[in-house]
Amino acid sequence: MPKLWEDSIEAHRRAVRDAAVEAAAALVAQQGLASITMSQIAKRAGIGRATLYKYFPDIESVLTAWHEDHIAEHLRRLTDVADHTDPAGRLRAVLRDFASITHQRHDGDLSALLHRGEHVTRAHQRLHAFIQDLVADAAAGGTVRDDVPAGELATYCLHALTAAGAMTSADAVGRLVEVTLTGLRPAPTGPE
Amino acid sequence: MPKLWEDSIEAHRRAVRDAAVEAAAALVAQQGLASITMSQIAKRAGIGRATLYKYFPDIESVLTAWHEDHIAEHLRRLTDVADHTDPAGRLRAVLRDFASITHQRHDGDLSALLHRGEHVTRAHQRLHAFIQDLVADAAAGGTVRDDVPAGELATYCLHALTAAGAMTSADAVGRLVEVTLTGLRPAPTGPE
Repeated sequence: MPKLWEDSIEAHRRAVRDAAVEAAAALVAQQGLASITMSQIAKRAGIGRATLYKYFPDIESVLTAWHEDHIAEHLRRLTDVADHTDPAGRLRAVLRDFASITHQRHDGDLSALLHRGEHVTRAHQRLHAFIQDLVADAAAGGTVRDDVPAGELATYCLHALTAAGAMTSADAVGRLVEVTLTGLRPAPTGPE
Repeated sequence: MPKLWEDSIEAHRRAVRDAAVEAAAALVAQQGLASITMSQIAKRAGIGRATLYKYFPDIESVLTAWHEDHIAEHLRRLTDVADHTDPAGRLRAVLRDFASITHQRHDGDLSALLHRGEHVTRAHQRLHAFIQDLVADAAAGGTVRDDVPAGELATYCLHALTAAGAMTSADAVGRLVEVTLTGLRPAPTGPE
C-alpha cells in the first residue's frame, strides 16, 4: 500500500476512535457511569454499532481509552509546564500543577473502576520518572536535598500531593504544595 | 437479668466472635483470600456452621471484623507510642510507627476488598484526629509551623507516609519520615 493511503487509513481510524471516546465521555457526564450502553455510544459518535465493536470489545475498553487520553493530556500539560524555568522553579510549577489536577478530579467512579488498569500503572511510572528527573536536577542545583535518593523523594512528592484530593480549597492546595516542597529542602548542616 | 449473667453472655459472645475472626485470619494466611468458605471458618473455630451464621452473615463480614481488629490494634499501638515523650518527640514516634505499619502491610488483597468499608472511613477519621492533635501540640510548642491549619498538616502527613508502602527498605522508610517531618518545620522567617 502506498504510504499516503496508510496514513489516511490511520487518520480515519484515529478519528473514529476519538469520536467513540468523546461520545462515551459526554454520555458519562450526562447520565453517569452505570447506565451507558454500546448502542448509545455508537449513536452519539455517529457510527454503526458493528463498527464500534471493531474498535472496542466493551464499554470498559472505551472508558479505559478515555482515561488513557486524560492521563496523556495531563502528562503533556505537566511536561509543558516543565519547559519554562530553572530547575527549582520547574519542580515547583510541575508539583503545583499536579496538585491542582488531583484537586480538580471529579472522576471518582471512573478511577475506582479503572484504577487497577495496566495503563494507569504505566502512566504512573512515567510520571514518577519525570518527577524524579526534576528532583535530581534541583538537587544538582543545591535547592533540593541530595542525601535522599531522587526516586524516593519523587515517591514522597506524589503521595504527599494526592492529599490535594482531600483539600477543600485552592488555598489549602497551595499550602500543601509549599509544605511538600519544604520537605525537599536540604537538611540543616549544623550550626554555622 | 442479673448483671453478672449479662457480663458472662457478653464475654461468651466476644470469645466466639474472636475465635471465628482468628480462624478466618489463619485460613487467609494458609490458602489466600479467594477460596475460604464459611464451613472452613466454623470448623477451624470449633463452632457449628449455624452458630457462625448467627454472628456473621457472610465471609466478607468476618473479614471486615478482622480488618477492624487490625485497625483498632494499630490505633492502640500508635496511642501507646504517643504516651511517652514531649510533643515533637511524640509526633515523630507516631509518624515513624505509622510509616512502619504501612510499610509492613501485606494485606493488599484484603485492603482492595474492604478498603471502601465504612469501618475504614471511621478508623481513618480517628487516626486523622489523633495526628491533628499531635501536630497542634507540636505547633503550640514551636517545633511545627503554625501558619498552616493542623488538620491540613495531618492530611499531608498521612498521605506522604503512605509512600512507605512503595519503599523497598526500612532505611528508605526512615528517610521518608524525616523528609515528611521536614515539611512540617516552621517556614523561614526571613534574614535575621
